[in-house]
Amino acid sequence: DLNQQENFFSRETLDRLSEKRTDAGWLEAKQSDSDTVYLLFSNLNPMISCSLEEETAGEATRLCRFRYDDVKDLLQKEATVLIFIGVEKKKKPSSSSQTEGSIWDPPAWFAVGTDEDAAELLKRCREKSCSFPKTPNRDLLKLSEEEAGVVAQARSVLAWHSRYSFCPTCGSSTKLEEGGYKRSCLNADCRSLKGVHNTCYPRVDPVVIMLVIHPDGNQCLLGRKKVFPPGMFSCLAGFIEPGETMEEAVRRESEEESGVKVGPVQYVSCQPWPMPSSLMIGCMAVAMSTDIKVDENEIEEARWFPRQQVIDSLFRGSSPNFSVPPRQTIAHQLIRHWIGMNSNL
Amino acid sequence: DLNQQENFFSRETLDRLSEKRTDAGWLEAKQSDSDTVYLLFSNLNPMISCSLEEETAGEATRLCRFRYDDVKDLLQKEATVLIFIGVEKKKKPSSSSQTEGSIWDPPAWFAVGTDEDAAELLKRCREKSCSFPKTPNRDLLKLSEEEAGVVAQARSVLAWHSRYSFCPTCGSSTKLEEGGYKRSCLNADCRSLKGVHNTCYPRVDPVVIMLVIHPDGNQCLLGRKKVFPPGMFSCLAGFIEPGETMEEAVRRESEEESGVKVGPVQYVSCQPWPMPSSLMIGCMAVAMSTDIKVDENEIEEARWFPRQQVIDSLFRGSSPNFSVPPRQTIAHQLIRHWIGMNSNL
Ligand SMILES: Nc1ncnc2c1ncn2[C@@H]1O[C@H](COP(=O)(O)O)[C@@H](O)[C@H]1O
Ligand SMILES: Nc1ncnc2c1ncn2[C@@H]1O[C@H](COP(=O)(O)O)[C@@H](O)[C@H]1O
Ligand SMILES: [Mg+2]
Ligand SMILES: [Mg+2]
Ligand SMILES: [Mg+2]
Ligand SMILES: [Mg+2]
Ligand SMILES: [Mg+2]
Ligand SMILES: [Mg+2]
Ligand SMILES: [Zn+2]
Ligand SMILES: [Zn+2]
Repeated sequence: DLNQQENFFSRETLDRLSEKRTDAGWLEAKQSDSDTVYLLFSNLNPMISCSLEEETAGEATRLCRFRYDDVKDLLQKEATVLIFIGVEKKKKPSSSSQTEGSIWDPPAWFAVGTDEDAAELLKRCREKSCSFPKTPNRDLLKLSEEEAGVVAQARSVLAWHSRYSFCPTCGSSTKLEEGGYKRSCLNADCRSLKGVHNTCYPRVDPVVIMLVIHPDGNQCLLGRKKVFPPGMFSCLAGFIEPGETMEEAVRRESEEESGVKVGPVQYVSCQPWPMPSSLMIGCMAVAMSTDIKVDENEIEEARWFPRQQVIDSLFRGSSPNFSVPPRQTIAHQLIRHWIGMNSNL
Repeated sequence: DLNQQENFFSRETLDRLSEKRTDAGWLEAKQSDSDTVYLLFSNLNPMISCSLEEETAGEATRLCRFRYDDVKDLLQKEATVLIFIGVEKKKKPSSSSQTEGSIWDPPAWFAVGTDEDAAELLKRCREKSCSFPKTPNRDLLKLSEEEAGVVAQARSVLAWHSRYSFCPTCGSSTKLEEGGYKRSCLNADCRSLKGVHNTCYPRVDPVVIMLVIHPDGNQCLLGRKKVFPPGMFSCLAGFIEPGETMEEAVRRESEEESGVKVGPVQYVSCQPWPMPSSLMIGCMAVAMSTDIKVDENEIEEARWFPRQQVIDSLFRGSSPNFSVPPRQTIAHQLIRHWIGMNSNL
């Protein structure tokens, strides 16, 4: 069925309209269009608005939106990075100002990455209580599903530009092209200009994240890194290596990090994680051994948790001794998936 | 069940033993060990051996294997790239030369990338009919499943070194570390040295490849690029973009390339594709529309093919008007998967 699981950061609110990336005239016209929406990023984080009252009421953090006139000075600056994110998908409710039968031209969205002073940037916003998040891993999880999807795309591409402004093949400077989806080497003799090379395109790092189930079916394997909040345990995870399948990466990383050997692996769902640009590929896996020996470089502790203890933590609130990551993470969703599989929750 | 589909290039013959990558002493000892196996790569392609008789008999192409003494001069050279691929997994049959009960120390494998003259390199091999493949897309498909897995890993990592020898963050030179799995910037002030950055690690590009099924369930959508051999059609495919899920990439690329809108998407299996370093994520997808409008920049033609025509091509041999890619490709396996799903083949 169509009812596939939707993870946080994965909603596609905009149509990427990738064929317009090479249409310089169209892009330029959209930039100065008064309907166009601009998002401002400083140090890879978007300007957001959330008053204390709203936060107390549990409302979602909102992205601050700007118009062309608010940002056109920034667009002139050398260090500014401009990304075309896409156009709005949904039809606007027909407004009286539009002639009946006229074709709706959907507003375009752009992300602006700038190195201007953050405090000065905040003054540009008419909304109160604006800020740039300091801990994106936590703060970006407060966005709505719609805005989280937009930020996932924009932040990943901006992070690529911030780390890949030189040509990895020859070390020369590069220039931004195609609405922010390409960087080309400025050295005319560079190999990267002959044929198609991944050096010119944004990088996405595939990562496996897996819930390993005990052979008895009633316990799952969770681990914690030293940096986790006290008592929090999560799924094991690791980067897929060159020449490796998802399933094999699940087996290798499980054994490396916990010593537990894994047999069958089943893909469940995936999640873009824009810190900076991972694709988290979520799997369930069945253990073929149970002894735990953690890789102490990466994991502080790993343990088998009985189903009932996991249910208690999910539904009765976290205890100081055991909690799992928040619902916006695919780790949480994998754990919930397992709990839901053999029960009627 | 454990019987998950195995695609070409995905067998893990060796244990990567990643914890040894940071153990310089161990790596150095293994390099000069007389059991160690070296593979030689020129221009990213491995030296292979296949006589005309063997090829006529349909036998697999073999990798030429070298010992330390055969390659130690190459290892001294500045331009040589040395990758630790792993150690052999299977236990050797106990040989009389080993004391009973002694622990088996599995042979290590290394890949050597060199820019020495290819003709000179070929003289180093004792086997007859050695060569470096000219068309890896085709020639590497003739390896055995075991050797294909080793080549997938080694070639992807070598391709990364060949394109990423400069730091993308600052443009400085970098040095190879951790058995060939890391490159670190030589500029002590570089941002890439503070914290963990993907610029230092091999790149894997996730790609979706999908067999789109007609709403009637009896036709599949295949397309051809201009560069394909005449009559060959394959699955649509495309790079996963930043901030995108696999499922959403399937929908976006299907519509971009063929105009066909896609609903439900189901993951089937994946395949590392080392030309240069992709991970092909194979999916089945159900079309929600049927009109075809190809993106002429990428696709020459796309068509709905009836199930019976696909069966004929798979089992009665290819016709000049319609063939699918060879069995070593995940495109072929996805097509076969669909044919097998609703029948007893
Ligand atoms: N693309 C990558 N980005 C960041 N770290 C990577 C990457 N690939 C490998 N690593 C290494 O993998 C470690 C994290 O381990 P894991 O996530 O379990 O694979 C990092 O500390 C790095 O040493
Ligand atoms: N990582 C990448 N490596 C190579 N080409 C890429 C990459 N990402 C995007 N592209 C572009 O995608 C085109 C192929 O289209 P597709 O495979 O359908 O996404 C190439 O010709 C490039 O313009
Ligand atoms: Mg890990
Ligand atoms: Mg790892
Ligand atoms: Mg790990
Ligand atoms: Mg394509
Ligand atoms: Mg594409
Ligand atoms: Mg495409
Ligand atoms: Zn260059
Ligand atoms: Zn650097």
